[in-house]
Amino acid sequence: MTASVPNTATHAEMANAIRFLSMDAIEKAKSGHPGMPMGMADVATVLFTRFMKFDAKSPKWADRDRFVLSAGHGSMLLYSLGYLTGYDDLDIEQIKNFRQLGYRTAGHPEFGHVSNADTTTGPLGQGITNAVGFALAEAMQAARYGAGIANHYTYVIAGDGCLMEGISQEAITLAGHLKLNKMIVLWDDNHICIDGDTALSTSDDQCARFAAAGWATAKIDGHDPEQIASAIAAARNADKPTLIACRTIIGKGAPNKCGSEKVHGAPLGADEIKAARDAANWPYEPFVIPDHVLAAWRAAGSRGAVERQAWEGRLSTLAAAVKAEFSRTQEGRLPDGWQAAVQAFKAKISAEQPKVATRKASQDALEVLTAAIPEMIGGSADLTHSNLTNTKACAPSIAAGAYAGRYIHYGIREHGMAAVMNGLALHGGFIPYGGTFLIFANYLWPALRMSALMEQRVLYVLTHDSIGLGEDGPTHQPIETIAALRATPNTLVFRPADAVETMEAYEVALLNHKGPSCFALSRQNLPTLRTTHTSDNLTAKGAYVLVEAEGKRQVTLLATGSEVSLALDARKLLAAKGVQAAVVSMPCWELFDRQSKEYRAEVLGDGCVRVAVEALTTFGWERYVGLDGAVIGMTGYGASAPADKLYAHFGITADAVADAALARL
Amino acid sequence: MTASVPNTATHAEMANAIRFLSMDAIEKAKSGHPGMPMGMADVATVLFTRFMKFDAKSPKWADRDRFVLSAGHGSMLLYSLGYLTGYDDLDIEQIKNFRQLGYRTAGHPEFGHVSNADTTTGPLGQGITNAVGFALAEAMQAARYGAGIANHYTYVIAGDGCLMEGISQEAITLAGHLKLNKMIVLWDDNHICIDGDTALSTSDDQCARFAAAGWATAKIDGHDPEQIASAIAAARNADKPTLIACRTIIGKGAPNKCGSEKVHGAPLGADEIKAARDAANWPYEPFVIPDHVLAAWRAAGSRGAVERQAWEGRLSTLAAAVKAEFSRTQEGRLPDGWQAAVQAFKAKISAEQPKVATRKASQDALEVLTAAIPEMIGGSADLTHSNLTNTKACAPSIAAGAYAGRYIHYGIREHGMAAVMNGLALHGGFIPYGGTFLIFANYLWPALRMSALMEQRVLYVLTHDSIGLGEDGPTHQPIETIAALRATPNTLVFRPADAVETMEAYEVALLNHKGPSCFALSRQNLPTLRTTHTSDNLTAKGAYVLVEAEGKRQVTLLATGSEVSLALDARKLLAAKGVQAAVVSMPCWELFDRQSKEYRAEVLGDGCVRVAVEALTTFGWERYVGLDGAVIGMTGYGASAPADKLYAHFGITADAVADAALARL
Repeated sequence: MTASVPNTATHAEMANAIRFLSMDAIEKAKSGHPGMPMGMADVATVLFTRFMKFDAKSPKWADRDRFVLSAGHGSMLLYSLGYLTGYDDLDIEQIKNFRQLGYRTAGHPEFGHVSNADTTTGPLGQGITNAVGFALAEAMQAARYGAGIANHYTYVIAGDGCLMEGISQEAITLAGHLKLNKMIVLWDDNHICIDGDTALSTSDDQCARFAAAGWATAKIDGHDPEQIASAIAAARNADKPTLIACRTIIGKGAPNKCGSEKVHGAPLGADEIKAARDAANWPYEPFVIPDHVLAAWRAAGSRGAVERQAWEGRLSTLAAAVKAEFSRTQEGRLPDGWQAAVQAFKAKISAEQPKVATRKASQDALEVLTAAIPEMIGGSADLTHSNLTNTKACAPSIAAGAYAGRYIHYGIREHGMAAVMNGLALHGGFIPYGGTFLIFANYLWPALRMSALMEQRVLYVLTHDSIGLGEDGPTHQPIETIAALRATPNTLVFRPADAVETMEAYEVALLNHKGPSCFALSRQNLPTLRTTHTSDNLTAKGAYVLVEAEGKRQVTLLATGSEVSLALDARKLLAAKGVQAAVVSMPCWELFDRQSKEYRAEVLGDGCVRVAVEALTTFGWERYVGLDGAVIGMTGYGASAPADKLYAHFGITADAVADAALARL
Repeated sequence: MTASVPNTATHAEMANAIRFLSMDAIEKAKSGHPGMPMGMADVATVLFTRFMKFDAKSPKWADRDRFVLSAGHGSMLLYSLGYLTGYDDLDIEQIKNFRQLGYRTAGHPEFGHVSNADTTTGPLGQGITNAVGFALAEAMQAARYGAGIANHYTYVIAGDGCLMEGISQEAITLAGHLKLNKMIVLWDDNHICIDGDTALSTSDDQCARFAAAGWATAKIDGHDPEQIASAIAAARNADKPTLIACRTIIGKGAPNKCGSEKVHGAPLGADEIKAARDAANWPYEPFVIPDHVLAAWRAAGSRGAVERQAWEGRLSTLAAAVKAEFSRTQEGRLPDGWQAAVQAFKAKISAEQPKVATRKASQDALEVLTAAIPEMIGGSADLTHSNLTNTKACAPSIAAGAYAGRYIHYGIREHGMAAVMNGLALHGGFIPYGGTFLIFANYLWPALRMSALMEQRVLYVLTHDSIGLGEDGPTHQPIETIAALRATPNTLVFRPADAVETMEAYEVALLNHKGPSCFALSRQNLPTLRTTHTSDNLTAKGAYVLVEAEGKRQVTLLATGSEVSLALDARKLLAAKGVQAAVVSMPCWELFDRQSKEYRAEVLGDGCVRVAVEALTTFGWERYVGLDGAVIGMTGYGASAPADKLYAHFGITADAVADAALARL
């Protein structure tokens, strides 16, 4: 695979095909980023013609090499490669309609839009961290199915922006620690950032930094094909991940503008493109690639078909059960029988009625689920004993050279954890879940957004979910976090009230292929409220009447999580005053909003006084209580004290709920 | 200052005073983190008795050394030091009531609660990054007022957690790049994280990593006072920032539990504390520090008084105007006359009525403001030409060894930028503002939360504020961000509709001493709507009637930013159908919520149909439109296309607004 592809086109011609497609598409779109595709055209040409294992006609082949354009603004590099190598969904019309409505060629590469985007990139640092997840998933699949089934590299093109972002440190230290030797980062070392020379803002010795994190490193001329090839070949044989610093000239090929920040993010203009054509002896019209160059590229795109067929042959020789397991997990289908375990768990809880924190209920649920669903991969950002995310089935933990386990010690790297989980999910074969405190969802939110934008099944276990965590104080007490999560599209946010709802939330999350799920879980113990077993998943409706009013309902009390039992207390206080209230448990707003208008009206109680209670920000609750209702919750930051004292101090009490209702009757 | 303080207490006794206060307070509170204070007691004792320049009786002395307990969970270290050295607000009752409601000794150190907390810490990585801001502020003040006025060190105690967080990479690379040689990080290298041995999740060579970022490094035994002292003395003379890796035993002094993660975050228990007392030959009752030890510590706490007096002497010899300028800026008071410049700007805009993007209006406003307010310090996370944050008055940019300028190239380090700005603001003397795209406020949100929790005047310039940014597509189009910012307590979120509102927003933000302000600014051009000059700051009311209905109001159209002009168009469409609508511009929800009930009712229009329009998430708008109104906005992610096509595609149009109103009449 390291031999040159036989063709009559030169390397320079093939690289220039990328350059001119990028220039022309960006010029036509009147916006875009030519500097990176032009600067990295030589590196990409060597990588894709000599090394990348892929088959353009089978873009979802499980054992293909993964390619992550972490510097996603250089999207025309990816689109050019896709068109040139012959992906069916990237014809020349797509290139001509770069950045236009209804076309796949978005400003930044979007997973699911173009079949050669293994992940969505653009927000800097996300791609390189996804790549850690890809490389780890490969190692984990190899440990399970052998190198005949999983044996691929993960290549990353990253720019200075990716490497300056903090998340990149989390990525490279984790990759180095886990010795993910099939991860190869090609750094576009062009000395230019948007403000100007990178010397304006950084003096890092990147190779030394990566070496300190356990990486192999190399420095090359990023325009010399043989240096590029030698470095990649060496990296493929390294026993650790490799950084290749590719010294490049941004916008190479633009004779007057190259080497400057001016070529980073704006069209070159007709004059400069003409000058580039002249300088490169490229007489072809815009969007025209001469036949011999296109043929050479198409040969590179079909080169992997032989390997794919060989792989399919190896897959077919696996034992039927093993093969079925591989296909099932790779396609994201859940195993038979897991929902029976869910039902048994729910029935047991309803019968035994434990008083446990929902974080503990989550652990109990995860014990059941990880035992039934072997592709679930747990982890925590160094809060395992607090998040209670580890289970017997997940043992042993994953470590360097030992990838058969199912638990990842992500370290104190929340943002990295989330982006690595995205990579695990995107790769196929695994369903990742990871824990931290709810407040530290703020740290990982940009990566959670990517889970949501890419509609990935990633599960976020977010414990210590309110002032109920007590003494750790306002730095650790989430107030606004829940609103941000709820405002994030494609994201299910669960705040279960007891162990039954906790398991129901996991059931919904596992069945949901359209995005991530978040579980806001209490530190403090909560009573079991769902004391009558039902095989229906009530949490799947988002909200439901937990206890109806005696007689005609006058008041609807809406609550989530730890405050549902508080609402039940308020209901009793109201009953003592002759006021009839229903208590609605509302574990998931997003699911409730999807119910029929009739169901929603029935639950919320048309014409009833509505009071919501949640020991988090009041922001957003007006959606359900309207202008006339009340919201009992937090409007400022918390404090450091035992939880019961805090609830009293901030007026989140049954009395306050009852009083708010009475004041509105 | 490097000579030992003469006293009759031994180093071991003084360090043990920290250890036992920490053990006892955490035991009494039944929660807390003894491991770090016990492990770092020796380092802290050497630092505070031999090096730290401070005067416990004058905690706000401007030229004191700053101390940042980045590993904020070890708060009992700070509280012990505060009590021992004699801070008035940290008496023994505060120690005895650690983590209790109404006391200053919160679970994590809170700025403004205890006078020896230079910043709030706990969320890992924030403190070490604030410290970059402290060190930079010192260098900037020294460049302005000379070393006689600003000449202090910034010491940081950081744990593995701080160094594993991505933000720490942003901090150390910026500090190394800017050669902030008075920043000294003491790393509690105890090989333990919460999950267990740090080898579970990291293999970094931290010294090599810091060296790669331009730092000096040293490795010492963190329990050997002379090694500690030598390393600190060397660090103070280095020409670059210094990392001192202090090899320690977590929980040192707990004979059975030390060296294990079990001592990190839970009380030791009575038996272990008794064993610790026996082992240390510490016969004193809980919370009792023997007189000779307390006297030695108090001597350390008052040692700096002489230096402080000398500094005050130097300050008094400055020219009156210079001294006044120092005091004014240090105390956060604005200069005379700046508001006249605001008025002139507003009058000019209303007269000239330019059609400009609010990001450009922001630049114009900043030109005026930075010229009038010399303590304003600009910057951008490598989007200077897009955020338009640089001004003539801010030139030249700050660089290593050149700190007289007023513009910081933060690099692609959004999170770091925000936390550095917190440090600049906390230090005193400066008002920082920094730019990035609104979507990347997601990256910096955890640090913005700290701005808000600490009530710091930090200004966030957030451009490209909606799908109106166009072709860059959904990765760059903020949807949910605005809801998160609005849900963050103590934070003013402005989305101005034109250049007048932009300047008014800055005026409010500069006058606000109670937290940060965010400015969501358009990429695209917007017409001037405030065409009649008024000296009143209408934006300060949060929302106001921009155009009243002709005759009796039937409909209220609520809008922000770029959608206000769209609402005006909708008003015309309604008028053409005989429906009378008012348009309310609503640049800041938080300020509107503070207005009187009568004003709010008048603006919103009691009994009117209400339709809100904003090209961002609809989440939260029910607070103003209730259950019967409509919200025209985004409920999913955007797309890549020219802005006008996106508005039409997503139905954010004057027609849609008018139709929503008509449907509700």
